[in-house]
Amino acid sequence: MRVAKFILLAASLLTSRLPAAAQDYTRFVDPLIGSQGLGRVFVGPTAPFGMVKPSPDCTSSPNSGWLPEPTPVTGFAQVHVSGTGGGPKYGNILLMPFSGPLALGDKSAHRQAEHVELGYYRAQLAQPTIKVEITASPKVSFYRLAYPQGQPKALQIDAGFFLGEQPEPDGREAQQFVGSEVEVVSPTEVRGYSRIRGGWNNGRAYTVYFAAVFDAPMAEFATWKGKQLHLGQKLQADSGEKTGALLRFANGAGDTLKVKVGISFLSAARASENVRAEIPGWNFAQVLGQLRERWNALLSRAELGADTPLAQQKLFYTGLYHTMLMPVDRTGENPLWNGPMPYYDDFYAIWDTYRTSNPLITLLAPQREVAIVNALLDIYKHDGYLPEARSGNANGRTQGGSNAEVLIADAYVKNLPGIDYRLGLEAMLKDATVPPGGNEEQEGRGGLLAYNKLGYVPYGVDRAGNRTLDYAYDDYCISVVAKGLGQQPLYEQYRRQANNWQNLWRADYKNHGATGFIMPRDAAGQWLDTIPFGNSVRQHPTFVYTPLTRENPWYVCHWCAYFYEATSWEYSLSVPHQVPALIAKSGGPAAFRARLDTLFEKKFYNVANEPSFLTPSLYHWLGRPDLSSQRIRQIISQSYNTTPTGLPGNDDSGAMSSWLAFQMMGLYPNAGQPYYLLNAPLVHQTTLRLADGKDFKITARNLSATNCYVKSARLNGRPLRQAWLSHQALMQGGELVFEMAAQPGSWGTQVLPPAAE
Amino acid sequence: MRVAKFILLAASLLTSRLPAAAQDYTRFVDPLIGSQGLGRVFVGPTAPFGMVKPSPDCTSSPNSGWLPEPTPVTGFAQVHVSGTGGGPKYGNILLMPFSGPLALGDKSAHRQAEHVELGYYRAQLAQPTIKVEITASPKVSFYRLAYPQGQPKALQIDAGFFLGEQPEPDGREAQQFVGSEVEVVSPTEVRGYSRIRGGWNNGRAYTVYFAAVFDAPMAEFATWKGKQLHLGQKLQADSGEKTGALLRFANGAGDTLKVKVGISFLSAARASENVRAEIPGWNFAQVLGQLRERWNALLSRAELGADTPLAQQKLFYTGLYHTMLMPVDRTGENPLWNGPMPYYDDFYAIWDTYRTSNPLITLLAPQREVAIVNALLDIYKHDGYLPEARSGNANGRTQGGSNAEVLIADAYVKNLPGIDYRLGLEAMLKDATVPPGGNEEQEGRGGLLAYNKLGYVPYGVDRAGNRTLDYAYDDYCISVVAKGLGQQPLYEQYRRQANNWQNLWRADYKNHGATGFIMPRDAAGQWLDTIPFGNSVRQHPTFVYTPLTRENPWYVCHWCAYFYEATSWEYSLSVPHQVPALIAKSGGPAAFRARLDTLFEKKFYNVANEPSFLTPSLYHWLGRPDLSSQRIRQIISQSYNTTPTGLPGNDDSGAMSSWLAFQMMGLYPNAGQPYYLLNAPLVHQTTLRLADGKDFKITARNLSATNCYVKSARLNGRPLRQAWLSHQALMQGGELVFEMAAQPGSWGTQVLPPAAE
Repeated sequence: MRVAKFILLAASLLTSRLPAAAQDYTRFVDPLIGSQGLGRVFVGPTAPFGMVKPSPDCTSSPNSGWLPEPTPVTGFAQVHVSGTGGGPKYGNILLMPFSGPLALGDKSAHRQAEHVELGYYRAQLAQPTIKVEITASPKVSFYRLAYPQGQPKALQIDAGFFLGEQPEPDGREAQQFVGSEVEVVSPTEVRGYSRIRGGWNNGRAYTVYFAAVFDAPMAEFATWKGKQLHLGQKLQADSGEKTGALLRFANGAGDTLKVKVGISFLSAARASENVRAEIPGWNFAQVLGQLRERWNALLSRAELGADTPLAQQKLFYTGLYHTMLMPVDRTGENPLWNGPMPYYDDFYAIWDTYRTSNPLITLLAPQREVAIVNALLDIYKHDGYLPEARSGNANGRTQGGSNAEVLIADAYVKNLPGIDYRLGLEAMLKDATVPPGGNEEQEGRGGLLAYNKLGYVPYGVDRAGNRTLDYAYDDYCISVVAKGLGQQPLYEQYRRQANNWQNLWRADYKNHGATGFIMPRDAAGQWLDTIPFGNSVRQHPTFVYTPLTRENPWYVCHWCAYFYEATSWEYSLSVPHQVPALIAKSGGPAAFRARLDTLFEKKFYNVANEPSFLTPSLYHWLGRPDLSSQRIRQIISQSYNTTPTGLPGNDDSGAMSSWLAFQMMGLYPNAGQPYYLLNAPLVHQTTLRLADGKDFKITARNLSATNCYVKSARLNGRPLRQAWLSHQALMQGGELVFEMAAQPGSWGTQVLPPAAE
Repeated sequence: MRVAKFILLAASLLTSRLPAAAQDYTRFVDPLIGSQGLGRVFVGPTAPFGMVKPSPDCTSSPNSGWLPEPTPVTGFAQVHVSGTGGGPKYGNILLMPFSGPLALGDKSAHRQAEHVELGYYRAQLAQPTIKVEITASPKVSFYRLAYPQGQPKALQIDAGFFLGEQPEPDGREAQQFVGSEVEVVSPTEVRGYSRIRGGWNNGRAYTVYFAAVFDAPMAEFATWKGKQLHLGQKLQADSGEKTGALLRFANGAGDTLKVKVGISFLSAARASENVRAEIPGWNFAQVLGQLRERWNALLSRAELGADTPLAQQKLFYTGLYHTMLMPVDRTGENPLWNGPMPYYDDFYAIWDTYRTSNPLITLLAPQREVAIVNALLDIYKHDGYLPEARSGNANGRTQGGSNAEVLIADAYVKNLPGIDYRLGLEAMLKDATVPPGGNEEQEGRGGLLAYNKLGYVPYGVDRAGNRTLDYAYDDYCISVVAKGLGQQPLYEQYRRQANNWQNLWRADYKNHGATGFIMPRDAAGQWLDTIPFGNSVRQHPTFVYTPLTRENPWYVCHWCAYFYEATSWEYSLSVPHQVPALIAKSGGPAAFRARLDTLFEKKFYNVANEPSFLTPSLYHWLGRPDLSSQRIRQIISQSYNTTPTGLPGNDDSGAMSSWLAFQMMGLYPNAGQPYYLLNAPLVHQTTLRLADGKDFKITARNLSATNCYVKSARLNGRPLRQAWLSHQALMQGGELVFEMAAQPGSWGTQVLPPAAE
């Protein structure tokens, strides 16, 4: 029995918090924020970290599947990801109601009156008008379909559909069909599966099993395989072809059809059991209510003051909501091994989420973060490496470092209980010492041998620049855990390696008034002023590399750039453990301030890229938290809003959203280190409902459009002169009061935030 | 439609040969030969390369599952391997007839009158007496169960059973339970699956789906999950616990129950389709007859003279039979990807099979070898590396080299058509240039970076000695294909690397009169006279390493020895591409002959280990094929016989058996090179039925117990003075006549067999 222990644990956590949620925070969540443009968030109903994510499928770009009208909807698939870039993943088991005869062919339809809220989706399909409503439990989608009176009530279930099908058979990042099956097992149930490989992380095959259960018996059905429709044939067994079913239901008392679609990654029978276990009845409103309660139990752990303007409430709670869509809790649904540990999938990617998404989970739902870290360690034990990213039960792909190490260190320094940190250290050391080999995009550290030999990743290895920076920080995280576990020699080794970013620091290089940049260096130690252009081996063309060079998409392949998705101007400031050293190397505080100002004023800064998340807060280490707050306010007002394009970049599993949520409260974590930077909150008051019944209240007194600087602060009534606060202090509960003013005072100017000694 | 093309191809190959098989060679096959002692062969009925391998399960050691009385039988599982050592694999979906009430508990029984023949198994289970008969088609086991008159006809189907369950949860090489399911889908059918991970190759989870179909309806049934029995409950869905079913059938007209158990690696419905496709009816004798025909079509491709003594016929045809049990043809049953290529699993291991098993398949069923090589290349394309071994759809584990390269080279030099040799070269180069990383036992070349840097694998890397020898030969194979494809620089590089075995040749080392041995050498180039004993890091004990040292099992871990399963005396002679150089390095022909004589006379030679397969034939390169034949006859008479202990070592997917079959005909392949060594046959006449209707007949005139030397030979009427024959010459058809005598003549003394120039 692998499941029971954690389900009980999760249930007790949930219920123990429920009484606190007197208010309904779910109404502040708008799933459409960030659904268009770069945000790419999932818009359908889903439970927190929920396994099913039903949503209209209109496109494979964005990977969420959803686009507004005038793009028609192809159907409603049960599994999606949120906020992701790159190639598609999932989009499996496509339902589509229709009202014609049981015939093969496209059933796409336009939508009218589409409406999205937390836990609930509604639209009217046109010609004929069919009203579709959807809600969900963790593993079951629940559809309520209202057909035109007296018209055929038909439903298509496509087990062969998936997002992003491409004509070429083995396109990179393309999902590939492996097999499917469909079986009418009773007049009220259809089961089957879809088996797909590849996609964004080039993963091995995954299988999405389903059981669709109806509240009325079928009057007629047909199943298909390939291009052949078979009237009345119950089973289309897997022969490597696409299959599906067309169903017509009797027009009985009403013209509504309810469908529960259970999903499982183990078997179709298990999917059917999931339906029975999670949604035994047919009460749509009740299921929706339970889903809202689940969310409210989480959202209510951070209560904004009641007088907070609606737009801010929406930004904040939607931010929390986006952060808790993924990774996906698949405990009890792991087809690869069986044991007492929780199982999570869809880490997408930890490079994106370690900075703010996971710290926000740690702050609001620490046991959830414990489960996530334990799942990562269990994956290490069984698959050999911690994931940097994972989807469809397969590790892959790495963007920069082996950043699950940051999650382990962050859990360690924040004293999260119930984690085997010795196993954690072992897993971190595997990353740091054993080259992954074969496919260096899958897991571990690409270019590791060179990094360990030279102290940096030389030019020629893909993403050498940011890999070096990421590995150096990951090594710092190893040193933190090693030290805590009393492993002094390991601590010393990895503490030394944490300096490795300095080996790529080209000290005399100047650009736009700034001195010193992370620049390409070859294995012989030479700095490179030019790097190859394209792939020609005859002409050997080169181009001049500067700190503003952005190689993608045309100089080199997308994953072969020197810095992944960024420039040296951005990445050279990404040293979260050694900001004072970075300031010194940049020429001291004055030069560093000028450098930061140039970065923001000349728009070299990219709010949408995670390596720059800490950058606006770097003024803190200059004793100028007022400037940090100024930049942060500017960024938020320019880049975030409550519209569908209100996120500045791919939300990346809540990365953009959690950055915002932290900044709105006036807190910002430096993941892997046990403190929060403090800055001017955007809201008057936030109350964090911590574990053990403790609260931590943050108040911004006299906050207004002009009073946007912290003049002074008090913690539990005593003056707090520093612009940072330890996690431990926060977790003890209490009250932090900021005195806001139109001009900054001396707050945060003397005792600077910590750095690795 | 991935299946049809190859099924049709396979069927046409089969039927096109069928008319030739006027005689029934299946009666010469005795599946019990090699079933006890070291041989470990599978004894149950199976098709050639057949997916189902039903057999009684009495033990997990041997891994075939079978042991004779007095060990009781636990039941009959549907999937097994043949001839393997190391940890267990498979043993899934255990059937057991019984005659009591439907109650949980051990149903083990003793057997009486157990009888095994090709395609057919029979035994009487005791108390009460139930007669069990089994036959099979490629994907379906067929059981005929005769119960005592008037007694309950009951059957247990255990979906949780597997071979080698161990108390500790993650024992090395131990199979681990992941999940199972069972469902009574109709009164005459039960479906389900067993999902298991680990085992011999530490593979990822594999799922064996089944559909058991009965010729009579159940009168009563119960299913179980864990330790709970549920009377009349149809479904036990997967929740990570063991499941199974207990069934009772009505006592109708007869007391016989027939059960067809279809297997699939895609789905239970697919398993059910496999039953309908392969065995639509209930005629046990007909299915058995069809199975015999399949085998006869293959066995009849090598016809021994009619006057051959029965014992020799049994040794020979059982040898062919053992060679065609694995790898297993799973075309259309690959859960990982979908495409036009054939799919094979259970390569166990190519290190064992490349020398004689695959060459025998190439000789007798070349299209089968083409399919096997294409399957390997398709695995490379999708999984990233060629398998060295593979089972349960997962690569692992390597024993020495990356020897799929030898299969590709062997196919290339033997002109097998329909293989993309450019893709083959690409796959070989992946092995030779990209370290597998992470788990160096899984695939590719462990210790590759050191090998490529130093020209040998240094002491400290597991199996450094035989890895170096294997890699050097694999590199030779790469050079052969590279040269053929016109890749001159690659050819030159790998031809140079083929000499790498010489870098571990310690020229001045003497032992028992022989000079020069492959000996441990460290990364600094120093020869090691002593190597570490045990794992103590405090005491650093060492022991003297000599060419007779056999480290296993107590000096080091089984997979950490310097030579895998052998000594330097054996391995130092394992240079199949450069025997003349080996002779020169050993001090010239006289010294080499003395060395060989010492090897055999002092019993340093191990017939049961594949790296020594060529060794008795090395006298050929001294111009003394008579001595080769003498040794071969001696080995066979001492080590092979028709009893259950008649194989000298683990048959390893037919390795021992195919070595014997080749030697009996008077042929011996040197895989990767396009010729056969000729030696004195053990049988008077063999006719090979080649492709295109050609025959090649080998006759040993005047062969007798005393006339055991080849005096002279004629090929198609013309004198053949050399003791070797090109594959091409053989494939043209014709007749090779050996004149046998009591004393050798000058045959084979002048033109020595080829070697890499």
